[in-house]
Amino acid sequence: MRLKSYACGAWVEGTGQGTVLHSAVTGEPVAEIDSQGVDFQAMLRYGREVGGPALRALTFHERAYKLKELGLYLQERKEEFYALSRHTGATRSDSWIDIEGGTGTLFAYSSKGRREMPNSHVYIDGQPEMLSRKGTFVGQHIHVPLEGVAIHINAFNFPCWGMLEKLAPSFIAGVPCIIKPASQTAYLTELMVRHMIGSGILPEGSLQLICGSVGDLLDHVTCQDAVTFTGSASTGQMLRRHPAILDNSVRFTMEADSLNASILGPDAKPGTEEFDLYVKEVVREMTVKCGQKCTAIRRALVPRQLAPAVIEALKARLAKVVVGDPDQEGVTMGALASGDQCNEVRGRISELAKSCEIVYGDPNETPAGEGAFMNPVLLYCDQPLQHREVHDIEAFGPVSTVVPYDGVDEAVALAGMGQGSLVSSVFTYDDDFARAMVLGLGAWHGRMLIANRDCARESTGHGSPLPYLIHGGPGRAGGGQEMGGIRGVLHYMQCVALQGSPSILTAVTDKWIPGARRIEDSVHPFRKSLEELRIGESIVSDQRVITLEDIEHFADFSGDRFYAHMDEAAAKANPFFEGRVAHGYFIVSAAAGLFVDPAPGPVLANYGLEHLRFLTPLNPGDAIQVTFTCKQKVPRVNEAYGEVRWDCQVRNQNGDLVATYDVLTLVAKQQMV
Amino acid sequence: MRLKSYACGAWVEGTGQGTVLHSAVTGEPVAEIDSQGVDFQAMLRYGREVGGPALRALTFHERAYKLKELGLYLQERKEEFYALSRHTGATRSDSWIDIEGGTGTLFAYSSKGRREMPNSHVYIDGQPEMLSRKGTFVGQHIHVPLEGVAIHINAFNFPCWGMLEKLAPSFIAGVPCIIKPASQTAYLTELMVRHMIGSGILPEGSLQLICGSVGDLLDHVTCQDAVTFTGSASTGQMLRRHPAILDNSVRFTMEADSLNASILGPDAKPGTEEFDLYVKEVVREMTVKCGQKCTAIRRALVPRQLAPAVIEALKARLAKVVVGDPDQEGVTMGALASGDQCNEVRGRISELAKSCEIVYGDPNETPAGEGAFMNPVLLYCDQPLQHREVHDIEAFGPVSTVVPYDGVDEAVALAGMGQGSLVSSVFTYDDDFARAMVLGLGAWHGRMLIANRDCARESTGHGSPLPYLIHGGPGRAGGGQEMGGIRGVLHYMQCVALQGSPSILTAVTDKWIPGARRIEDSVHPFRKSLEELRIGESIVSDQRVITLEDIEHFADFSGDRFYAHMDEAAAKANPFFEGRVAHGYFIVSAAAGLFVDPAPGPVLANYGLEHLRFLTPLNPGDAIQVTFTCKQKVPRVNEAYGEVRWDCQVRNQNGDLVATYDVLTLVAKQQMV
Repeated sequence: MRLKSYACGAWVEGTGQGTVLHSAVTGEPVAEIDSQGVDFQAMLRYGREVGGPALRALTFHERAYKLKELGLYLQERKEEFYALSRHTGATRSDSWIDIEGGTGTLFAYSSKGRREMPNSHVYIDGQPEMLSRKGTFVGQHIHVPLEGVAIHINAFNFPCWGMLEKLAPSFIAGVPCIIKPASQTAYLTELMVRHMIGSGILPEGSLQLICGSVGDLLDHVTCQDAVTFTGSASTGQMLRRHPAILDNSVRFTMEADSLNASILGPDAKPGTEEFDLYVKEVVREMTVKCGQKCTAIRRALVPRQLAPAVIEALKARLAKVVVGDPDQEGVTMGALASGDQCNEVRGRISELAKSCEIVYGDPNETPAGEGAFMNPVLLYCDQPLQHREVHDIEAFGPVSTVVPYDGVDEAVALAGMGQGSLVSSVFTYDDDFARAMVLGLGAWHGRMLIANRDCARESTGHGSPLPYLIHGGPGRAGGGQEMGGIRGVLHYMQCVALQGSPSILTAVTDKWIPGARRIEDSVHPFRKSLEELRIGESIVSDQRVITLEDIEHFADFSGDRFYAHMDEAAAKANPFFEGRVAHGYFIVSAAAGLFVDPAPGPVLANYGLEHLRFLTPLNPGDAIQVTFTCKQKVPRVNEAYGEVRWDCQVRNQNGDLVATYDVLTLVAKQQMV
Repeated sequence: MRLKSYACGAWVEGTGQGTVLHSAVTGEPVAEIDSQGVDFQAMLRYGREVGGPALRALTFHERAYKLKELGLYLQERKEEFYALSRHTGATRSDSWIDIEGGTGTLFAYSSKGRREMPNSHVYIDGQPEMLSRKGTFVGQHIHVPLEGVAIHINAFNFPCWGMLEKLAPSFIAGVPCIIKPASQTAYLTELMVRHMIGSGILPEGSLQLICGSVGDLLDHVTCQDAVTFTGSASTGQMLRRHPAILDNSVRFTMEADSLNASILGPDAKPGTEEFDLYVKEVVREMTVKCGQKCTAIRRALVPRQLAPAVIEALKARLAKVVVGDPDQEGVTMGALASGDQCNEVRGRISELAKSCEIVYGDPNETPAGEGAFMNPVLLYCDQPLQHREVHDIEAFGPVSTVVPYDGVDEAVALAGMGQGSLVSSVFTYDDDFARAMVLGLGAWHGRMLIANRDCARESTGHGSPLPYLIHGGPGRAGGGQEMGGIRGVLHYMQCVALQGSPSILTAVTDKWIPGARRIEDSVHPFRKSLEELRIGESIVSDQRVITLEDIEHFADFSGDRFYAHMDEAAAKANPFFEGRVAHGYFIVSAAAGLFVDPAPGPVLANYGLEHLRFLTPLNPGDAIQVTFTCKQKVPRVNEAYGEVRWDCQVRNQNGDLVATYDVLTLVAKQQMV
């Protein structure tokens, strides 16, 4: 079977000689791959001209819902993916990470997109910046989608997750993508893409696929495109140097394998929970996906005096690993991706063995049938400050090295010798040691896990990137960054600093900015449905004078008898007050009394409040008056209501701001009949 | 006079032949420049080993205060800078941008750093991410300073501002820098750095200077360093390709000149305020700094039918420009940086003139004495869709081209033909046109100004980057990003996704994370000074039952008689409630009654509240109970108090969360005696 590319809305077969892809388990041919004859430049154009506009026509929430729908669609077909995944050498639990980890990422991004982004086309970043004294000139950062294509070039180890974790954020951003899976396991990506296209969920042009070489694709990228790469540092470095990428300042993010360290704390002696957790985690990281994970633990840093005990415990646990065909009962570690991969790993092990000792596993033995099987191999590097190999050479397989350290500073130095890693983990129950490791090693890492008894049961472990957290590390790890929730979406958007009057920025951003025109009519805004409400719709309330009796009454009723409200002399002695002041909680309560229109109507509930600041103390005899303005509307796609954020400004009789805050409400989309 | 470099704590003179720098105004020699013999690798090491640790020992606020102190110190000596600045060709108002714009950036960063960052060593980015069902495993993004050096390579046009706008954010981040000014005007940078070093304000090693070539400096950069470049695209592209930068995934940010467009809206006809503002701004951008600004308006996009009127108005205004020695009375435009610069600009004009017509100014005339003087030159490109020159060729001098457009789509297309710009401005009083421009052009720009009558008096104009807003654009503009408030600081820090139990992440970040251990003792936390208070210090309050009478009483007293509180049947009809509910404002008021300890003490005031969410409705007969926990402390460097943020969780009698929020207070550092 020859894999096809999905280009410009059609499935096309390469016209070249093709390369045969073999099953990692049986060695039999699984598919043929070739992309000759595909018009790569046309694919870019198609993405830009068809996919981009279709995606940008959707709101962030609409895109987010499509990801959820897609995730559910793929979940229903997961057994088909599991069946084919076996040929990659993966066990069922390896495949789970790839397949269900992938759909899980779609769900996570769908949820983040709806909770943390507006249901519109422009993402508003931060608060307005006041650029002028009188407030007629303000700034607001926004993000708008790039108008090009995201080219995702992926690694062989996660043919599903690798695609979906990149597709999700670029899709929410509103940027179409071209997926280029690594050839070795592209058959699984192709199968999944067939279902994704077949589902009809994704707008045409928003997803294209290249099975085989990318040809001249990269020659045609512009600053509106983005290129992401996951894989070996050498290929990544080559791509980064591509003239079109450099010439056009094309966004390029790279996530390469690194020499990730896991550090055992001096407190985590044999017998502690952390010691046992550590041993378990090192073995897990060696054997999951046969150690073919860019986040796997390559260096197990342990206090020198604990090294013998750690090695013994690791050996005992490694002895229980059963290597073989993932379909067989009892097998706990499958095959590497290919025989070539096995040979490469064996070569790296012999390079490492020049300055390290093999303490477990014969790398040259063939532990199971015809496939790309090899034993897990544990090494020990006695003099890691003298020998760079252990910090430099990555054996991308079931291989790890125990590295002893003497003291906190040496642990920091040794971990840093990896020259930048995706992740480091620290197994300790000692807060000070954890803190020293984070402050000492943070600058070298994109992620750090502190593992101990308190989180062990729920921890997702050293090796698992999560959609909520950034993935990618400095230096050797490629210097890239992916995911991290909405951060990952913004990688596909342009941040624009807008400047202008509050009114015109409100018109552009659909979020009311203080100082912008307010709209007042005879109807109270609480009487208007979400659809009827306009941004800037506003009322100015009546005044209410706050008396000393009010303050005392409020104190009695609420129970808050803080001295600044109750005791004139003590209040005067306070550096911020000139005498007794009204409670802040009373001010916001009385303000609600002034702006609320009580009868049933479209406004359903007050679900919260943000950014409350008390600016001018309110003394007995002062009055308050509220200006209440519709600031932002977020209609919910699948609900009969949405969120309305109101700007609330409370002023005293002199016009001084007493308090400012946002009131958060739920409002029905339409008038109840 | 030979300029010196400040390297490894000493002023050193280059031992080479040297290059003579000439006054742009008189043509006389001003200084000689040379860096031969400087040990660049030692400078990097000195920055990393001396400057870095000294800076990282300070908190964000301490660094911020040093910037303020430095700004004041330089302000006091400003006349010395103005005097020397004249030789760069700058008028007094040009120099103001460079010198006082520069110190203004220090003040802005000082203020931002103190208001928006904690007074500690780790910047906390966003809210904790809940990674597990039971909450024992959470995530938190933090930023820690890079452990290398920021190498700032600057352009000749802003020898002071260019240095300070880059120094400020890297300094606050805690990263030492090496400044490399462009040779042509390095004498002014050197003078300012002499004062900066002489002031003794900056920690030793935090600032070094290279006057002359950078030699082999870049060969030694690692992933812990960062390189910023401002200047021509060709030099920038060369630096970006440096092997050590590529090999080590070194952060490289580039800000290059671009073909910035300013767009006149179709509504802004002659006679409107926007038309006049536009004409004024185009001429201002042509003449300020002799048009030697990377943000200057190179393309004046105007509705085709308005082009003749715009050209006439521009010509009339340009006729009033007086070119000459900036020291002479009445001069409004000074000299270019050098004779070479003049020649280069003239060359570019003749390239442009192949497809554009010169409508004002003779480029080859020499309007004043010996210096690098030239006339402002206005061109007109009648067929801008056919001719790429106007979108490609930048004459970095007092030169601009009027470009006519037909319709909104063509305006967008033409502006985008610049292939990415630092800034675009739109002169319009039409909200729809402004919106169309921002949505159509945002992806091609780092900043967009919408100018009109409402903001004209306070606007800082098309060409001024501000510390509060990002500066830098995609594609042709270099794809970099600077400033933008704290965003610019984070460019010099590593973002780390921390994972672990709430308790250990609290210990590492000094910010209490829900689920972390709480500390309870017999003393109410309101009785403890800022210094005594520990993160996690907590009380659990008594319970209070909320009765129907309470709700009615609160409604009467506050005036908030919203139906969900007052009318059982109407409340039941609401999709979120099962009957009458307590006011949210009442819940937070009663909660304060439960957690406040009233007597005078270290807690001085409640200045606000954040992130309030009402999670479970409270019906009559339900009880509330508050868990109140010290979350974060921000001692103010120069005050006797600091900010304390408290985590407040209100639960009902079943333990369900009713409300969660942060209470913001001011607390004295020490007990009052």
